[in-house]
Amino acid sequence: MKGKTIQEMTVGESASFAKTVTETDIYLFAAISGDFNPAHINEVEASKSMFGKRIAHGLLSSGFISAALGTQLPGPGTIYLGQNLKFVRPVGIGDTVTATVTVTELLPEKNRAVLETVCVNQNGEEVITGTATVMPPKA
Amino acid sequence: MKGKTIQEMTVGESASFAKTVTETDIYLFAAISGDFNPAHINEVEASKSMFGKRIAHGLLSSGFISAALGTQLPGPGTIYLGQNLKFVRPVGIGDTVTATVTVTELLPEKNRAVLETVCVNQNGEEVITGTATVMPPKA
Amino acid sequence: MKGKTIQEMTVGESASFAKTVTETDIYLFAAISGDFNPAHINEVEASKSMFGKRIAHGLLSSGFISAALGTQLPGPGTIYLGQNLKFVRPVGIGDTVTATVTVTELLPEKNRAVLETVCVNQNGEEVITGTATVMPPKA
Amino acid sequence: MKGKTIQEMTVGESASFAKTVTETDIYLFAAISGDFNPAHINEVEASKSMFGKRIAHGLLSSGFISAALGTQLPGPGTIYLGQNLKFVRPVGIGDTVTATVTVTELLPEKNRAVLETVCVNQNGEEVITGTATVMPPKA
Repeated sequence: MKGKTIQEMTVGESASFAKTVTETDIYLFAAISGDFNPAHINEVEASKSMFGKRIAHGLLSSGFISAALGTQLPGPGTIYLGQNLKFVRPVGIGDTVTATVTVTELLPEKNRAVLETVCVNQNGEEVITGTATVMPPKA
Repeated sequence: MKGKTIQEMTVGESASFAKTVTETDIYLFAAISGDFNPAHINEVEASKSMFGKRIAHGLLSSGFISAALGTQLPGPGTIYLGQNLKFVRPVGIGDTVTATVTVTELLPEKNRAVLETVCVNQNGEEVITGTATVMPPKA
Repeated sequence: MKGKTIQEMTVGESASFAKTVTETDIYLFAAISGDFNPAHINEVEASKSMFGKRIAHGLLSSGFISAALGTQLPGPGTIYLGQNLKFVRPVGIGDTVTATVTVTELLPEKNRAVLETVCVNQNGEEVITGTATVMPPKA
Repeated sequence: MKGKTIQEMTVGESASFAKTVTETDIYLFAAISGDFNPAHINEVEASKSMFGKRIAHGLLSSGFISAALGTQLPGPGTIYLGQNLKFVRPVGIGDTVTATVTVTELLPEKNRAVLETVCVNQNGEEVITGTATVMPPKA
């Protein structure tokens, strides 16, 4: 149940988490966050928007990055220190998003790791890019 | 039902959204995101951690920033382009988090606005700091 | 699986449904309805209010009336035509609400029934009063 | 975060909240309320009914009225005193319901406001009509 310590991590290694996004996910995310922007929960308004349909909240798909970090790399016990995100393409109902986190920098003296974080859809198109900073679990 | 256009926004204006975070929120966020890091959903493991208890996912409280942006400033019709986040203090079950977004930069020619995004707890302590970039709705 | 027809109903008969209201119920009701009034989901603000704590949405407890009508009297197949509600006392987290529906009028020629609808808390105090109009299932 | 006081309200002003109703909303409403009338959660039974399919609970769509009152007009801090409802048309999965509340009467000496409350679907057809009585927040 313990993730990797910083000593056990190597630059370049990666892990992924993937999920098909459902209408239920979007409605529950609105529920938790309070973000009832019609872009997410009003099909009539959303159909008139740039995307032509309801889309997932950017932070919803970002949650898959959190899943990859918190359950795989570094894994259980990780403390999330920061996340930079660019939402580069919309995610719609039924899209399958794969979040991949790749170690780019290790700072053992501060017990910090930096990871590139990319989410792609089922067509391999980037939907989110960014970087995460985490504190891996200690031995 | 339409939010503010970039012409209607002014540097320095702000909006807030606040919510008491519950165990239910944390469990539903784990459900949506797949982030089952024991720090969030395993009281036994979490009680041995640096924080001594289960804490909310960083991206959960970040969702309140999304709510302030998507329902108030700029409001309905906003497109979220990016978000930088630092998770500076943990949020526990029962904490009340207030997210405040404040306009810091307006780029009308690109229809982009930058906002400072800060979340504080019920004691006024910062729990998340960062900045958002959004595309406000058009007229 | 069929409820009572209007011929099978009698003036004065009643049915009840009861449930202890949880924080989860309130948060999910906010989620479904979009009603994020701080009275329901912000303990800091709610503690300064007339009630001194977060309270359930009035329409949440009213749902127990809908349950009594839709599952018991008249029961499965009932069509809900109207409901008048007075919210006379707040319902807090942990309160147990019993909704009782009592037939007061039967209009067989129009296939309509009127029921008195009362919700009380665990102390027997009325929290909601009102009347429902329904179309019972046909034979 | 405070809504309008009765002095800040005017007869004729209105506010709206809109949402596309999903199967998830209906199932969660059944979960919260206990109303498991097959009309809502049994497609086989519902397909034999007058409406030919599962429909949303009347009090679910009524929740959008609560959202308009509790978050917009009068807004945060509003106390809900009563609601009369007529369910005039069914709401199905995928329908987009817009709840509009319009001030019809102001009683400053009692701090009470009466609002007409109407829900329409994506075709502009009324699905719920009624009136609400609320106590706006004090200054």
